[in-house]
Amino acid sequence: MDDSLRASEREDAALARLERLAANRVAIEAVSPEIDAGRFAAKAVIGERFTVEADIFADGHDKIDAALLTRPKGSKAWIETPMRPLVNDRWRGATVFGTLGDWEYTLIAWRDEWASWLDEAAKKRNAGVAIDLELIEARALLVRARDEGAQVSTEDRAAFDALLVELDAAETADERYGLAASDATAALVRRAAFRTNLSAYERVVPVWVDRERALFSAWYELFPRSMSFSTKQHGTFEDVIERLGYVEGLGFDVLYFPPIHPIGRTNRKGRNNTLTPGPTDPGSPYAIGSEEGGHDAIHPELGDFESFRKLVKAAKAHGLEVAIDFAIQCSPDHPWIKEHPEWFDWRPDGTIKFAENPPKKYEDIVNVHFYRGAKPALWVKLRDIVLFWVEQGVTIFRVDNPHTKPLPFWEWMIAEVRERCPEAIFLAEAFTRPKMMKRLAKVGFNQSYSYFTWRNTKHELTEYMTELTSGDMPAVMRPNFFVNTPDINPRYLQAGGRPAHRVRLVLAASLSTSYGVYNGYEICDATPVPGKEEYLDSEKYQLRVWDFDKQGHIKTDIRFVNRIRQEHPALRQFANLEFFNASNDQILYYGKYTDDLSNFVLFAVNLDPHEAQGAEIEIPLWKFGLPDDAGIDAHDLVTGADFRWQGKVQSVWLTPEDRPYAAWALKHPASAEMRL
Amino acid sequence: MDDSLRASEREDAALARLERLAANRVAIEAVSPEIDAGRFAAKAVIGERFTVEADIFADGHDKIDAALLTRPKGSKAWIETPMRPLVNDRWRGATVFGTLGDWEYTLIAWRDEWASWLDEAAKKRNAGVAIDLELIEARALLVRARDEGAQVSTEDRAAFDALLVELDAAETADERYGLAASDATAALVRRAAFRTNLSAYERVVPVWVDRERALFSAWYELFPRSMSFSTKQHGTFEDVIERLGYVEGLGFDVLYFPPIHPIGRTNRKGRNNTLTPGPTDPGSPYAIGSEEGGHDAIHPELGDFESFRKLVKAAKAHGLEVAIDFAIQCSPDHPWIKEHPEWFDWRPDGTIKFAENPPKKYEDIVNVHFYRGAKPALWVKLRDIVLFWVEQGVTIFRVDNPHTKPLPFWEWMIAEVRERCPEAIFLAEAFTRPKMMKRLAKVGFNQSYSYFTWRNTKHELTEYMTELTSGDMPAVMRPNFFVNTPDINPRYLQAGGRPAHRVRLVLAASLSTSYGVYNGYEICDATPVPGKEEYLDSEKYQLRVWDFDKQGHIKTDIRFVNRIRQEHPALRQFANLEFFNASNDQILYYGKYTDDLSNFVLFAVNLDPHEAQGAEIEIPLWKFGLPDDAGIDAHDLVTGADFRWQGKVQSVWLTPEDRPYAAWALKHPASAEMRL
Repeated sequence: MDDSLRASEREDAALARLERLAANRVAIEAVSPEIDAGRFAAKAVIGERFTVEADIFADGHDKIDAALLTRPKGSKAWIETPMRPLVNDRWRGATVFGTLGDWEYTLIAWRDEWASWLDEAAKKRNAGVAIDLELIEARALLVRARDEGAQVSTEDRAAFDALLVELDAAETADERYGLAASDATAALVRRAAFRTNLSAYERVVPVWVDRERALFSAWYELFPRSMSFSTKQHGTFEDVIERLGYVEGLGFDVLYFPPIHPIGRTNRKGRNNTLTPGPTDPGSPYAIGSEEGGHDAIHPELGDFESFRKLVKAAKAHGLEVAIDFAIQCSPDHPWIKEHPEWFDWRPDGTIKFAENPPKKYEDIVNVHFYRGAKPALWVKLRDIVLFWVEQGVTIFRVDNPHTKPLPFWEWMIAEVRERCPEAIFLAEAFTRPKMMKRLAKVGFNQSYSYFTWRNTKHELTEYMTELTSGDMPAVMRPNFFVNTPDINPRYLQAGGRPAHRVRLVLAASLSTSYGVYNGYEICDATPVPGKEEYLDSEKYQLRVWDFDKQGHIKTDIRFVNRIRQEHPALRQFANLEFFNASNDQILYYGKYTDDLSNFVLFAVNLDPHEAQGAEIEIPLWKFGLPDDAGIDAHDLVTGADFRWQGKVQSVWLTPEDRPYAAWALKHPASAEMRL
Repeated sequence: MDDSLRASEREDAALARLERLAANRVAIEAVSPEIDAGRFAAKAVIGERFTVEADIFADGHDKIDAALLTRPKGSKAWIETPMRPLVNDRWRGATVFGTLGDWEYTLIAWRDEWASWLDEAAKKRNAGVAIDLELIEARALLVRARDEGAQVSTEDRAAFDALLVELDAAETADERYGLAASDATAALVRRAAFRTNLSAYERVVPVWVDRERALFSAWYELFPRSMSFSTKQHGTFEDVIERLGYVEGLGFDVLYFPPIHPIGRTNRKGRNNTLTPGPTDPGSPYAIGSEEGGHDAIHPELGDFESFRKLVKAAKAHGLEVAIDFAIQCSPDHPWIKEHPEWFDWRPDGTIKFAENPPKKYEDIVNVHFYRGAKPALWVKLRDIVLFWVEQGVTIFRVDNPHTKPLPFWEWMIAEVRERCPEAIFLAEAFTRPKMMKRLAKVGFNQSYSYFTWRNTKHELTEYMTELTSGDMPAVMRPNFFVNTPDINPRYLQAGGRPAHRVRLVLAASLSTSYGVYNGYEICDATPVPGKEEYLDSEKYQLRVWDFDKQGHIKTDIRFVNRIRQEHPALRQFANLEFFNASNDQILYYGKYTDDLSNFVLFAVNLDPHEAQGAEIEIPLWKFGLPDDAGIDAHDLVTGADFRWQGKVQSVWLTPEDRPYAAWALKHPASAEMRL
């Protein structure tokens, strides 16, 4: 090839690149939510407002406009929603997804020549400058809008023509300006989609749309085997059916069981995690698998598949969904060890190493590995086990220690299950390093255990909630705030007794949209293994007999929080949390409110379970556009009293026994200008 | 297709996806610097350390390792650099680019089975547990490293074999452990690249490597036409040649001229931006184009191309690079208006709208547009004009108002020029909204004017510098801190006189790696148009006669800052800025230091040009691992005195006239442990 030919080819490539770049004159960047440049889906909930923001701007001083485009994945047609500018070149649009599953969105923006014309003409006219030239330019623009607009209907084409005739017939500049600047003309041009330099965001962003329970849920955890209320008799699914009314009465909507599979005998644990079980000790349900079967079997003493399906159905009738535990681990007696030795890491002496989650040791458990001989067969098997339980009516899975299994496995398995069952919900029980916790949420977990259990002070809670509710985080990770678990008996509860239990309950149920309690919490059971954050006589290793009517129970509080969660739409959203000023470090004071402020709930919680605390608190009058000395009607959610706060600064007094927390709903002053 | 076939195809697709996902078991995310997911190149400088960070982690508790891969774009082979863990799953690697132009990088990570073995075996051994099984496993791992390692040389294969023989021959567990745990074995395994679950980051990240001047430069701006030092005689390039020694003597390295093209006559501006020029008024050089030519011509009164090239050459001999102005705008007399009417927006009355940059009006200027009839011809023409000046020896371009021209044009044009001339440097003069300023840097501008000119207080400067030096920002935007420009006579300088000029000079030259002054600054010329931030008798509209030896000049300060910038490597880096505590809001106290702390410069600047101010300052002894009561040797850069500070808290006293700023170099206490 000679040089001139080479030069000409180079120039052709340069010109092609020029056209590619020129096609996007308006910059669209910093799009949110977008998880790792679209590597992972942002999370949304069906029927809920989904807000997208981006920085959108172009050269010069012309007006621009922008729109959000959404569609179910696989669909060709986009649904368009207008965006509006906030400040500092930030734009926002919101949509609502109507179906479960994979969706996607992108953004478009363009120079709005008509809006620029209107702006400049109005300015000149207001300044008394003649706008004859501008009016001629307006006519030319209208012709272009008619001819170049992307969506000009036959009717609108006629309307353009009629408008041009009117303009030409008008006798004065004022008359022409009146026609050009009318709302009708603006609407006509907008409908025409006359979009100069129409530019598109460079990526299509994936969104996963869940059902509402993925975001909003109240979990109650129990061990079915204790539901006989006798240490002599192993509880059954039938016994659990008897308890459904109780759990429903407390106001929960998810009923979660630790593993219900056959329990191994080898290295079975005794009471209080000892290595010397008695002959009747039932063992830890996490030591899954025996000669009776593995992950797709039921522990015979609990019942059979028929009774399990009956339980699932009965629960549904009580407004409860059954969640089961997905714990990928095996007792040394699990059938897989013989059937699939290639799924395990054998040591040179023919043993398999038992599980550890330092400092915890699980002598009764061995782990599968996921690569080498185990890929893909084990991955497929595990997916099929989940799908098997879906067939039994279960669509909520609490996943044990997902951070010790490969991330790609979760990404693959969860997508596979959702493809067949978009209602499926996976809760990640990963108490580990923050980036791993977040990544598990990215790869598909719908809910996540959190650090809430160890965030007790005002500073800790404020900082943690700010992290969880800021930026893209709410589109990634939905925390489920468990106040306790069979494994975690927090020191705050051990030390703080009944007031502490009430405080943490209200915090969990209001700070997060999903929360959970493990049974015994309602009677403030917090006796620890001395010096440890564990329960004494843990149900993990023995049957327990509970007296849920025990004096000092806090069932009234539980019913209260679950009721207000149902009644107040603001409590069904996660990122709408805002902390307000309270003049005492022991009082956490915050609000949650809907976009239109029609629902606005305030909480003041005394974090000190030992002493009464008072504070001046600021009633957020400014949110309603009210001055500091205005009054606002409020409703005490605890007492049911209606009252009126006069002025921004009010005081609150909270006592550990009588009033550890307060909750109010503000009534929107209809006359006030709304400030969103 | 029947159902079973469809199911089988679906399963095949699922298995293929499984393998794709499984290939990246180790998570690599939050990679930095990566600009908009690699949409734009990160900026680097040849020969300078380039640091990459990422979150890297995997499931479980095994050891992992990671490496940074770099290569010139178009090359096949990667250059590998090890990464090391910081805290919280954050990893860091650093490299140095050896050539100008396009580079790219990516990251790899893997499970390090040998390191995991070493860790566990050592722990058990230290705990007195027998490790016989572990030693058998070690042998198996070494065989795998030999056979599966990606880079086993013939020599290393022999070394593996010899090691295995030794292990088998060893008589005690201690002996075997000694062999396995030796540094030599670790090095052998590392060389073998025995990398389990080798995972790659999902993107290749582009990097643009500039020459150092793009980052580190000191600009001096003058109007060549004033260099005759007579209002009666238009200055010439020959006159400028006479001044080169002066500018070199001050220590600058870039000599920048406003436009040097023919100036239009129509609507020519008179003195002080009036619309009534006298017959000899030269007009604004920004009104480019007359019958003598346009952007590829030279204003005849300045000289011709020969004298221009002579100037460029002479400047180089003085260590100065000539930068010219690239101002895409036309006087109404520009040849393009007749030759290319399709590049302009004509109004219905046959006129072209004059330029505005609200509130400023430029009646002597009309703008081209870039789309419709102007694309691609104008784009190509403008690129060729820049290349034309490159041929004249110019490789630095200060670009006037880039934010009023389309972003895609800059992205295309700058890439085109760099492809042919990777030395080219473009400085964006965009005083506009922050996101536009940043985007201009993203699309390719090597340097950017900044808000520095309007950041005066300690709070303002600290906040702004933190923004500029944090996260990916330094890999995007390199600010050039102009203390003044022909258009900007800052109020702080107007009010603060000589001390203010000295203060702002030191701040600009030390806070940023690039800074600039417009002539007259050295004699503290700050007479404003009353009430405005503009210079009276602006050189933009008239010739000026300067007396650069005028009493009160600050040339000593200028020479000082330019000298220490050359002498101290820490001042050649941008993001290495750190603010330290000074107990007075009028005293800004900060340091810059190299990674190895071998160069550590401290500045204390009195921001108050009217009153003396004192403060207690903290000498950053902790950086060197020294206790608070330690001593450290220091050198006063202003006085040349050597002294010793004893203890962390010291005091400083700064007076507007005698000592508006202090600058010290700390001497690395060789005996101290380094803390980076």
